[in-house]
Amino acid sequence: MNPQPILLRKDQERRLLAGHCWIYSNEIDTKATPLKQLEPGQAIEILSNRERWLGHGYVNPHSLICARLVSRSPERHLTPALWIQRIRDALALRERLYERPYYRLIFGESDGLPGLIVDRYGDLLSVQITTAGMERVRGELLAALEQVLRPRAIVLRNDTAVRALEGLDQQVEVALGEPDDTLVLEEGGLAFEVAPLSGQKTGWFFDQAENRQRLARYGVGERVLDVCSYVGAWSLRAAHLGAHRVTTVDASASALERVAANAARNGLSDRIEPLQGDAFEVLRELRDQGARFDTVILDPPAFIKRRKDEKDGTQAYQRLNRLGLELLEPGGLLVTASCSFHMGRDGFQRTVQQAARKSARSLQLLEVGQQGPDHPVHPAIPETAYLKTLFMRALPHF
Amino acid sequence: MNPQPILLRKDQERRLLAGHCWIYSNEIDTKATPLKQLEPGQAIEILSNRERWLGHGYVNPHSLICARLVSRSPERHLTPALWIQRIRDALALRERLYERPYYRLIFGESDGLPGLIVDRYGDLLSVQITTAGMERVRGELLAALEQVLRPRAIVLRNDTAVRALEGLDQQVEVALGEPDDTLVLEEGGLAFEVAPLSGQKTGWFFDQAENRQRLARYGVGERVLDVCSYVGAWSLRAAHLGAHRVTTVDASASALERVAANAARNGLSDRIEPLQGDAFEVLRELRDQGARFDTVILDPPAFIKRRKDEKDGTQAYQRLNRLGLELLEPGGLLVTASCSFHMGRDGFQRTVQQAARKSARSLQLLEVGQQGPDHPVHPAIPETAYLKTLFMRALPHF
Repeated sequence: MNPQPILLRKDQERRLLAGHCWIYSNEIDTKATPLKQLEPGQAIEILSNRERWLGHGYVNPHSLICARLVSRSPERHLTPALWIQRIRDALALRERLYERPYYRLIFGESDGLPGLIVDRYGDLLSVQITTAGMERVRGELLAALEQVLRPRAIVLRNDTAVRALEGLDQQVEVALGEPDDTLVLEEGGLAFEVAPLSGQKTGWFFDQAENRQRLARYGVGERVLDVCSYVGAWSLRAAHLGAHRVTTVDASASALERVAANAARNGLSDRIEPLQGDAFEVLRELRDQGARFDTVILDPPAFIKRRKDEKDGTQAYQRLNRLGLELLEPGGLLVTASCSFHMGRDGFQRTVQQAARKSARSLQLLEVGQQGPDHPVHPAIPETAYLKTLFMRALPHF
Repeated sequence: MNPQPILLRKDQERRLLAGHCWIYSNEIDTKATPLKQLEPGQAIEILSNRERWLGHGYVNPHSLICARLVSRSPERHLTPALWIQRIRDALALRERLYERPYYRLIFGESDGLPGLIVDRYGDLLSVQITTAGMERVRGELLAALEQVLRPRAIVLRNDTAVRALEGLDQQVEVALGEPDDTLVLEEGGLAFEVAPLSGQKTGWFFDQAENRQRLARYGVGERVLDVCSYVGAWSLRAAHLGAHRVTTVDASASALERVAANAARNGLSDRIEPLQGDAFEVLRELRDQGARFDTVILDPPAFIKRRKDEKDGTQAYQRLNRLGLELLEPGGLLVTASCSFHMGRDGFQRTVQQAARKSARSLQLLEVGQQGPDHPVHPAIPETAYLKTLFMRALPHF
């Protein structure tokens, strides 16, 4: 038997009506519809306080975001048919945009599947489930993915910390097939080794793929600095575009080993110089040695993971960008990214501009890249827009 | 003899120190340094209230923005050598980015030359001077442009209304050579007739050139609607990308004549269907006839020219986008632009999302284009960022 619908408190339906799909626990009329009787992940219907029907969704009484709306049509329930339709819609977009099957296939809320992330590596799918609602129908989702995509292997990369917010455990599992430890992915004519079971996130950062392509438009010059390189996607792109020498900085020795392997695989070893260490320390040393670059690429992990990190994180972005600018030749290109949702686009621009003032540079912002179109933004859900990649020319102070 | 420097009021130097270059009349200590003794356009030095030297600039006592800072270095005065340097810096960027000499060469504040706009059409330069400070050195600027670019012709398109704010008259003049009434410009493999002496703005909208290139990435389908087409840059791009039938809407019969001529020039006449009339009326008619398109392009003139137009202008954007969405097939592409500075990026996104809610569509924002890199944004001067072009997929409501 279906549980009773949950009732929102008075006037708490506005965000939903504007297109968002999250419901916070303090927005629910818990007197009329107590949450305690509901199981984590259970499907429910959502009504406004005046009993206007708002949608089908799922609930998690233990989470701050305690329900998510999935369907705004009374006849479209949370069934396998709906999962298949949403996966097909998502696939249609990617097939229109990508020549080869390497992309984010499902980007949660933006693809109408809140709590589900799927990356596609050819015939391997890497799946991440982040809510109890999706965990509860995991079997249905995997079956739907199998039916639509016919993959050879499915990996569950459920080792993300956000699962803890929903009371879910963290683990990596193979759900289908026998995936190899590494696979080879192609991006813009370059081949990269990816480790789908053990790499960062699902093994690859698809979200910057379009921005890496943009490098071709701007040109990189001869000397390039790539900071927080991971397995070398930016570095190899720069070398491929003609850079003579790319200094590739990362804190992780194993990431740099993969950079070296990827460079060798693409015949670019003589152009890549790996440098292991803390980004800030390495940049300070380079500056003190008088090093200069024609292009500096700064693509660090999120410095602001939670709102409370905002002040420290902003300072870290400013310090890193100031160091980067000090290493840049006049007229050089700064490519600087932030993947912190809590650092908005305007705030990031301001922070980089402050770094420029401190290093007596004038900046010209040539383009702002966001995450690629396989990570579409839902215009009513600000949380789906997180990546900002600024392409800037730095001149001596006007 | 040099005039006395102008002194700012207490704590009014912050915007300048952050990198902006405008000084409003109420920020000046007019007791210590009366403005009335200064002539419009005169070069001056700018000091903080504590007599910290801030820069060289020029003044216009009759304008709300009563001074603009041009140089932050005491030894770099406002001389022909400075104009030449700034023009060379601007040219270096464009030569790096563009294969052919068709672009905005100087974008005012962002290129360190506040009050000066120069568009380059091969060996013709179209110049627009918008401040008394630049008008005063007009001879020097034209000589510097001649020296660096060696153009065959220079046209002064000083017929913009913003000149009135600085007490300048409005006119079109030929400053050098004998330019033809029309010239032919190439954009992405297509040829367009442009009228540098009489066309809108300087004859062409270079600012959307990159965004038109982006259409190739997304594909346009068979049926395309191009609203506010001007001389057909979007329409012909869509036809060139394979659209079978492009409905090209503009209020101006003469613009549509040029669309037809441009279509003929590129062998695309059989794919272009011009439709003259008010955009809103034409779209309503099309909707009532049951017309449907695979791609809808909305690139209207600024609906919000002044801050006081904000409410009406926002409603106009919402109405236009709602009509556009209602004409779009499920899964179709909406390309929607706003060039109103007073309509920010977030506000525009919100407005389009509201239009989507009213037409029961779910939107996926694939990319946000801004003005091209020949119109660089100055990160400390928000006024230099004005164009937003959203690429979105529209689905039936999730």
